Amino acid sequence: MNTLVMASLRLCAGLAGRRSGLCVRSLRTLSGMTVSQIDEEVAKLLELKAQIGGDEGKHQFTLKTAKGTRDYNPKQMAIREKVFNTIIRCFKRHGAETIDTPVFELKETLTGKYGEDSKLIYDLKDQGGELLSLRYDLTVPFARYLAMNKITNIKRYHIAKVYRRDNPAMTRGRYREFYQCDFDIAGQYDPMIPDAECLKIVHEILSELELGDFRIKVNDRRILDGMFAVCGVPDDKFRTICSTVDKLDKMSWEDVRSEMVKEKGLSEEAADQIGQYVSMQGGMDLAELLLQDAKMSQSKQACAGLTDMKQLFSYLQLFQVTDKVVFDLSLARGLDYYTGVIYEAILTQTGPVPVVAAQKAEEGVSVGSVAGGGRYDGLVGMFDPKGRKVPCVGVSIGIERVFSIMEQKAEASAEKVRTTETQVMVASAQKNLLEERLRLTAELWNAGIKAEVMYKKNPKLLSQLQHCEDSGIPLVAILGEQELKDGVVKLRTVHSREEVDVSRAELVEAIKKRTSDV
Amino acid sequence: MNTLVMASLRLCAGLAGRRSGLCVRSLRTLSGMTVSQIDEEVAKLLELKAQIGGDEGKHQFTLKTAKGTRDYNPKQMAIREKVFNTIIRCFKRHGAETIDTPVFELKETLTGKYGEDSKLIYDLKDQGGELLSLRYDLTVPFARYLAMNKITNIKRYHIAKVYRRDNPAMTRGRYREFYQCDFDIAGQYDPMIPDAECLKIVHEILSELELGDFRIKVNDRRILDGMFAVCGVPDDKFRTICSTVDKLDKMSWEDVRSEMVKEKGLSEEAADQIGQYVSMQGGMDLAELLLQDAKMSQSKQACAGLTDMKQLFSYLQLFQVTDKVVFDLSLARGLDYYTGVIYEAILTQTGPVPVVAAQKAEEGVSVGSVAGGGRYDGLVGMFDPKGRKVPCVGVSIGIERVFSIMEQKAEASAEKVRTTETQVMVASAQKNLLEERLRLTAELWNAGIKAEVMYKKNPKLLSQLQHCEDSGIPLVAILGEQELKDGVVKLRTVHSREEVDVSRAELVEAIKKRTSDV
Repeated sequence: MNTLVMASLRLCAGLAGRRSGLCVRSLRTLSGMTVSQIDEEVAKLLELKAQIGGDEGKHQFTLKTAKGTRDYNPKQMAIREKVFNTIIRCFKRHGAETIDTPVFELKETLTGKYGEDSKLIYDLKDQGGELLSLRYDLTVPFARYLAMNKITNIKRYHIAKVYRRDNPAMTRGRYREFYQCDFDIAGQYDPMIPDAECLKIVHEILSELELGDFRIKVNDRRILDGMFAVCGVPDDKFRTICSTVDKLDKMSWEDVRSEMVKEKGLSEEAADQIGQYVSMQGGMDLAELLLQDAKMSQSKQACAGLTDMKQLFSYLQLFQVTDKVVFDLSLARGLDYYTGVIYEAILTQTGPVPVVAAQKAEEGVSVGSVAGGGRYDGLVGMFDPKGRKVPCVGVSIGIERVFSIMEQKAEASAEKVRTTETQVMVASAQKNLLEERLRLTAELWNAGIKAEVMYKKNPKLLSQLQHCEDSGIPLVAILGEQELKDGVVKLRTVHSREEVDVSRAELVEAIKKRTSDV
Repeated sequence: MNTLVMASLRLCAGLAGRRSGLCVRSLRTLSGMTVSQIDEEVAKLLELKAQIGGDEGKHQFTLKTAKGTRDYNPKQMAIREKVFNTIIRCFKRHGAETIDTPVFELKETLTGKYGEDSKLIYDLKDQGGELLSLRYDLTVPFARYLAMNKITNIKRYHIAKVYRRDNPAMTRGRYREFYQCDFDIAGQYDPMIPDAECLKIVHEILSELELGDFRIKVNDRRILDGMFAVCGVPDDKFRTICSTVDKLDKMSWEDVRSEMVKEKGLSEEAADQIGQYVSMQGGMDLAELLLQDAKMSQSKQACAGLTDMKQLFSYLQLFQVTDKVVFDLSLARGLDYYTGVIYEAILTQTGPVPVVAAQKAEEGVSVGSVAGGGRYDGLVGMFDPKGRKVPCVGVSIGIERVFSIMEQKAEASAEKVRTTETQVMVASAQKNLLEERLRLTAELWNAGIKAEVMYKKNPKLLSQLQHCEDSGIPLVAILGEQELKDGVVKLRTVHSREEVDVSRAELVEAIKKRTSDV
C-alpha cells in the first residue's frame, strides 16, 4: 500500500506544476484511503498523464491489433467494397435473400461439428451466464437458424467474419479473423439442380472478379466412401484416410501413400488401389466409366454418387460451365458434415500479378482454394429436436485470398484507388470567405452533391487544390468576392485545369453533368 | 471407464439394426481402449446418432442465440440494408472514407477508457497467447488505429457491431451485440467547423430516415465543468455529479437533487445553483447570456466553452439546422473521453407508429437517444508513445433503435417488404421442360437479369406462380412446347396477369423495360 501512495504522490508532484485540480491533496488526506481507492486514484492520474502527453516513451500500450487480425485502411476498404458488390450482385441475380447471425453462439451449438478443428474455436471468458464461442464458419449458424425457426427451404447468402485460432499466414491471406461469403440452398428438391446452381455461381463470380484462369474440382462424399470400401479400407479408417487423401493438393502421392501405410496402418494393396482411383480426372465420361468399373460398381454408395455426378454434369452443360469443372477423385474436403457433392475452386495461373508466385514454391503445386463447398443433408437435423432433416447445399467464397490478389493488383496498377466519392471541393482563393464556403457547401449537400470544404478559416488555394489532386476530387467550386457579386461560381476541372463561370442556380446541374461517371 | 464402455455399447446396440460400420466391434475389442479413445468413440457415435435423427426428443441442444443477441431474418436485413444505404450515402456526401478494425482488441487497448462501464466489456478466454476483449465501441479502436498508423487527419465512417454485457431490453432495441454507425473527423482545424458538420450530418440522417420530429441537444464538457466549479462542487466530485446530471432525461430534478445531496454528499446550496443552470435551454442567445452571467463568467473553462458554443451556432445557422438544435445545460454524456462539445439527438414524437409509446410511460419522458457524440481531443494521445494529440470530433448513430422503429413501421404498413430482387421466374406449365427452363435461366443470368427457376423436374404452374406472389417477383417467363417451336417466351406480368409473346432475342430487353424500377 505504501508503494502505491508513493507512486501516487510522485505523480502528483510531477504533475503539480502543470495542472491543478486532481492533485491538491496532501499526504495526510491520502493516508486515510483504502487500497481500492488508491488504485482508482492511480488509474485516474495515469489517464490524466496520458491525456496531457507527459513523460514521453513510458506508455506500456502495445500498439497493435490482435495476432492474425488486421485493420482495413480506406484503400483496402474501397477494394473490399468493390469485391463484395460483385459477389452480392451475383447472389441477388440468383434470387438469394440474406440473413445475419450473432458473432458468437452458445458453445454447445458449435460442439461436435468440426472434428479435429474444434481446437481452433475461440471461446469467450466465463463472466457469469452462458458459455459462448465465436463462430467458426457461417454454415453451422445457418443450420442452427433453420432448425430454430423451422425453416425448410430458403436460398440465402451471408457475408460476415468468422474466427479461427489457426496459424496465420497474412501475406497469403490467411487470417484468424476473416470474411466468408456463403450462398446456400436449403430444401427438398430434385437431385443436383441446386448443386449445379452453386457451381454456376462460383463460375460467375470467379469470372467477373477477373482473377485469372481457374478450375472447379468436383467429387462426392459417397464416391469417396464407396471407393474406400471397395479398396479394402476398414470402415473405421474412412475418415482418417480421407483426411490424408485431402493432402494430395499439397503433398506428392508417394508421401500421401506413405502416410496411409506407415502412420495410418493401411495395407499396401489398399493404398495402391486408392492411388489408381485418385489419379483420375474427367467429366461425365469418367462418371460413366466408373459406373462400369468392376470394383467401383460393387458399392451402392459409389453408384449413387456417380449417377448423381452424371446428372450434375448434364446440368452444368446447360449452364455452359463445363469448361472449368473437373470431376477429380482426389478431392476430399475436410469438414465432417458433407454428405454428397463436394467442390473446390482453385486459381490455375499466377494471374496478372506475381502475388501467387510466392505460394507456388514448386511447379505444379496448387495455388490454394478460393471457393469451396458441398452438400450437407444431415447438419440441420443435428439441431432439430426431432432430428428432422433439411437437405442443404452451399458454397463459400474465400474472399481474403481474393482481397490479397486484388490489393496487389491495385498496387501494381498505375490507376489510383479512390477512397471517397467526393464530386466537388468548395474552395476560395481569398480570405474571410469561410462563411460563404460553408453556405455553398450546405446548399450542395442538400441537393445531394458529394462535397467537401476545408475546415480552416483561410486555407491557401494551393492546399485546397492539392487535396483534390491527392484524393481524386474531379471538380473545384471556387468562390471569390467578384463571383459572389456576380452570383456565379468558378467551376474548375482539376484534371484539365479548365475553368468556367457557372451561375449559382445552375451549379448543381453543372456538377452532376461533369461527374455522371463518378 | 466401465460406464463409458457400457454407454458406448448401448448406443451400438441401439444403432446396430439401422446401420453397420462404426459399431462392428465386440466388447473384447473395446476392452483394450483408453478412456480418451472411448470418449472419442462416444462423441462419434452421438454425432452419427444426431445425423440419422434417431431417438427423438433426446437432443440436449438449447436452440437459441446468446442472451441479448438476435438473428436478422431476410425481412429485417432488407430494412437494415435500406437504413445503412441512407446513412452511408450521407457519410459519402460529406467526403468520408471508411475503415474497419477487428472485432476484438488487445485487452489493454480498452483498459481505462470507459470508466465504470468497463465491467460491461466481453473478454475472450485465455487460450494461450494474448488477452483479448470484444470492442465496446468504435471510437477507441479508431483512436488506436490513428496512433498506430500515425494518422493526424482523416474523415472516416465505420459501421460495425460492438459488444456490451449490459442488461438487454430487446423490444426497445437494446442488445448486447449491436451496430454502431460512426462518423469522425480527426485533425487540427479551426474551432467548431468539423463539430458543426457532425451536427449537420445528424440532421440530414434523421430527416432522411423519416422517423418523425427530433431534437439535437448540445452542450460542452468545459461549460459543465465550469458550471460545477462556480456552483461550488469540489474538483474531485465533478465526474460523479456529472453522471447524476446525466440522469435528468430519465429522472425528475427532485430525484437528481436528492441523489446529489444525499448519496454524493453535495451541499444543498451547490445543488440548487446547479439546478438553476441545468434548467436552461436556448440557442446562441443563451450562450451570450451566460457569458454575461456574473458567476459563470468567473470560469475560464466555461467562457471558452460558451464562446465556442456561439461560434458553433453561427455555423449551424449557415447549415440551416438551428431549427432542431438546442443548447441544453442538462446534457452530460457519460463517457470519460469527451473534452469539448457534446451532443445527443432524441425523437420528440411517437412518430407514425406506436413503437415509442411503450417507452414513453410517463408524459414528457425522453424516448431515448438515437444519436450522440462529441469532441475527444485526448483519446488518440493516450495511445501515442509520445502522447501526441490528435483532436477528434464525431457522432455515432444508434441504429438499433432506428431498426426497431423501421421494422414496426414496415409491420404496420400494408406494403410488403421484398427480400429478394428477382425480376423474373422462368416457369413452365408442361412436363419434361426442366432442361429448357435451366437453359433459359442461364441465358438470363448471363445477361445480368435476376432470375429464379424452381428446382423441380415438373413443378405445377400454380406453385410457380404462387412463389412469385409470395416473394413479389413481377414477371414470369413461361415456356411450353409451342413457345419453344415458335422461338418465343410467354412473358406474364404477375400483377395484371397480362401475357405477351416475346421472341427469345428480345426477351432480355423486354424484362429490363418492365422492371426498370426494381
